Amino acid sequence: MLGIMLDHKSKVSLKRQIYNHIKDGIMTGRIKAGEALPSTRDLSKYLAISRQTVCEAYDMLLSEGFTESRQGAPTRAIEGLNLGYEATHQMTQSPKQKKAVIKADFSTGQPDLRCFPGFAWQQSCVRGMSNMSLDQLGYTDSQGLEALRDEISAWLYRSRGMIANPRDIFVTTGTTLSLHILSSILYREEKDIVVEDPCHMGMLRALRQKRYSICPVPVDAHGLQVEQLNGTRACMVYVTPSHQFPLGGILPAVRRAELIRLAQKNGFYILEDDYDSEFRYCGEPVAPLYSMDNQQVIYIGTFSKILFPALRVGYIILPESLHKRWQYFRTHTDVQNSPFEQAALAEFLKTRKLDKHILKMKRLYGERRSVLLKSLEELFGQSWRSWGDAAGLHLAVQFPGREFDKKLIQKCKDAGVNFRPVEYHSILKGGHCDKILLGYGHMEPDEIRNAVGLLSEMINPPYSV
Amino acid sequence: MLGIMLDHKSKVSLKRQIYNHIKDGIMTGRIKAGEALPSTRDLSKYLAISRQTVCEAYDMLLSEGFTESRQGAPTRAIEGLNLGYEATHQMTQSPKQKKAVIKADFSTGQPDLRCFPGFAWQQSCVRGMSNMSLDQLGYTDSQGLEALRDEISAWLYRSRGMIANPRDIFVTTGTTLSLHILSSILYREEKDIVVEDPCHMGMLRALRQKRYSICPVPVDAHGLQVEQLNGTRACMVYVTPSHQFPLGGILPAVRRAELIRLAQKNGFYILEDDYDSEFRYCGEPVAPLYSMDNQQVIYIGTFSKILFPALRVGYIILPESLHKRWQYFRTHTDVQNSPFEQAALAEFLKTRKLDKHILKMKRLYGERRSVLLKSLEELFGQSWRSWGDAAGLHLAVQFPGREFDKKLIQKCKDAGVNFRPVEYHSILKGGHCDKILLGYGHMEPDEIRNAVGLLSEMINPPYSV
Repeated sequence: MLGIMLDHKSKVSLKRQIYNHIKDGIMTGRIKAGEALPSTRDLSKYLAISRQTVCEAYDMLLSEGFTESRQGAPTRAIEGLNLGYEATHQMTQSPKQKKAVIKADFSTGQPDLRCFPGFAWQQSCVRGMSNMSLDQLGYTDSQGLEALRDEISAWLYRSRGMIANPRDIFVTTGTTLSLHILSSILYREEKDIVVEDPCHMGMLRALRQKRYSICPVPVDAHGLQVEQLNGTRACMVYVTPSHQFPLGGILPAVRRAELIRLAQKNGFYILEDDYDSEFRYCGEPVAPLYSMDNQQVIYIGTFSKILFPALRVGYIILPESLHKRWQYFRTHTDVQNSPFEQAALAEFLKTRKLDKHILKMKRLYGERRSVLLKSLEELFGQSWRSWGDAAGLHLAVQFPGREFDKKLIQKCKDAGVNFRPVEYHSILKGGHCDKILLGYGHMEPDEIRNAVGLLSEMINPPYSV
Repeated sequence: MLGIMLDHKSKVSLKRQIYNHIKDGIMTGRIKAGEALPSTRDLSKYLAISRQTVCEAYDMLLSEGFTESRQGAPTRAIEGLNLGYEATHQMTQSPKQKKAVIKADFSTGQPDLRCFPGFAWQQSCVRGMSNMSLDQLGYTDSQGLEALRDEISAWLYRSRGMIANPRDIFVTTGTTLSLHILSSILYREEKDIVVEDPCHMGMLRALRQKRYSICPVPVDAHGLQVEQLNGTRACMVYVTPSHQFPLGGILPAVRRAELIRLAQKNGFYILEDDYDSEFRYCGEPVAPLYSMDNQQVIYIGTFSKILFPALRVGYIILPESLHKRWQYFRTHTDVQNSPFEQAALAEFLKTRKLDKHILKMKRLYGERRSVLLKSLEELFGQSWRSWGDAAGLHLAVQFPGREFDKKLIQKCKDAGVNFRPVEYHSILKGGHCDKILLGYGHMEPDEIRNAVGLLSEMINPPYSV
């Protein structure tokens, strides 16, 4: 009857099977418009199941408008439903992607996840969760948990003498979201978003997603060439003053003051991305631009380089004039952060576990940096020089006279040696062809030595001095 | 010397205090450009601290470019730094906001958080976390954990007979983000985003954030009036077919087929927002549009109404043609979801805890709905009628002949009786002045009875029939 075959072992309930079968029949035309369905009594007898089950299936069809029923008349399929094709849904397995065998991985921005204090973090998660009130399971507020904002403020003060009011701190899910929203809030027609050139391509794409006008300004070994800002029509300037990405310079105080003076005069905002200044191996972390001016400077921080990238918690410090606009956009972009991660991080900060972890990792990364420099010296002699300040998780290396073109990069990649040329991050191409980036944070000393060995095999022979 | 006063009890290190003091001095002009700083020997004697500490502070100033130092000459403040004002950062307490005393809270979309299975969720969190691999702490992939996508697919099948390939499922942080990104991906110049009128204002704002052109199409008791789509220039149509928000209709099968036919013919996408169809009190959940066409229909799901709003995990099911575009935009909007919540939810689904919770809540909400209907009957007699289907966490109620204008709403609010008029969600105003929304999911039966009592005190006397 109607061709229905029930599968009594299926996880799908019998009434759902009946419903599905009749619905498909109507939509594919196997059951014609106006055709009467068998009575519930007949169908239940035929299928040898309870009449109740069939009635429930018929009710579903009726309430969703696939059938109609008039007092005393049989239930009929409704008109206008035949879409003329079989609904073809297939459950296929997603093909596993083939991964090239990587022998030397110099990718940047990778903390060493093997050192992640998993147990301490788990403790913080459980404690954070049990301290949460019921209210915090509802929609709370796009600004973030007060406890976390207080802890971030205290941490900024003790780690870098920076004074930030918890009221001005807005929790985010990371720098990408911060830039995505800021570019919407701060962009003005006929104006430019000024970025450093070279700069992080992911961040550039977050800023330019809406095809806003981008104006690149070159950097040198000391970061952004601020004097070249004259004549630009900036509405915001995106900078990494503590450790320029990717070339590594610290913006000198004179340029900082000049940048702030320009921002005050021309009314643009400075987006200060402080992505890894915790890891500075000579002396203290650099004091942020924000400490010089908290009205024109918007400070953007993240925990993904300190803890782990998948932790989607960052923050942004905003002048009061932007609070409302930020909250409106944040609410209608992704509403708010999850409270669990926020509570866990607040606990992790409060119990000083973050401080301990940074201290440990700073020593470790510093050692790895030394190993990298020494290996380069051993294998490349005098043919290279490093750029930028002793900070972060990667090194920018220049090989004067050599050219890292696409062919060479691909050749290395095919041999399992992965690294990015600085040119990848350049907007105006051609200025940094002799420089590459070597991420070392995620590698053990032995891995670094091996990786540099493989690198030298790839790029030394044809170019050897 | 230089007016430095050290605070030995401060949490700020001594060298940081010295650094801060000199930096502020230079920037405010108290230390003139070119002025020599005292030698490290002299300053350390004067302050009675180790010379090493002073040297470190001087190194920080030097490396950040606040001072310069030539062989044999004293360290001097650099020129061009005086910004001419004191950096005024003040730590002030954020003022606590006054909250009006709410006596009857009929707000919509509020699950009862008191019934949240906190312990089971915590278990899932811990188990999910311990099953996570180290890789998952790094940047994984914007599509979401495979384990979670598999579980969502299985759950959709067993809960509503819906077939969705895990490969087409993309984890999100909720419906707002889904709409935010989809509006960017699918919008075409000279075209409209069609929305139901009335519709959820938060969703509307997520769609129109970029001032895209919005075309409202009216709904009746059965949802979107699909025939009125003729003549619109839609590039996408946002609908809530399983339970129209806010009026509650189920879109009948004929309108569904017509909507899909139009989408196929005109090449627009249907954004199907299935926000609470789990809670349907007569019969099974409604089969989604997606089951009728998985190429033009994009299915948007959320867990915030089932579990709790602060859980920032939702999902979207996309045709293959949109996978790449979605991933590019997602990566440059907020990168990816946190892995912890994903792992926890996967575990919660796998162990069938979600199914149990839904079953329990459905019974509970169904009872509360009955209490609400009964209370309305007792206190308002025949002067009202309910709209829409027996589903969800709120009821749309019409009081023919009455007008819920701003003045009346405010009067109720001042008396602690909170509810939204349907007009709040209307785009073209004036069509639903006699209807209000009563959210009941979050209230116990007694609370509901009290709240309806207060409501009747507010709106019965001046309008009594």
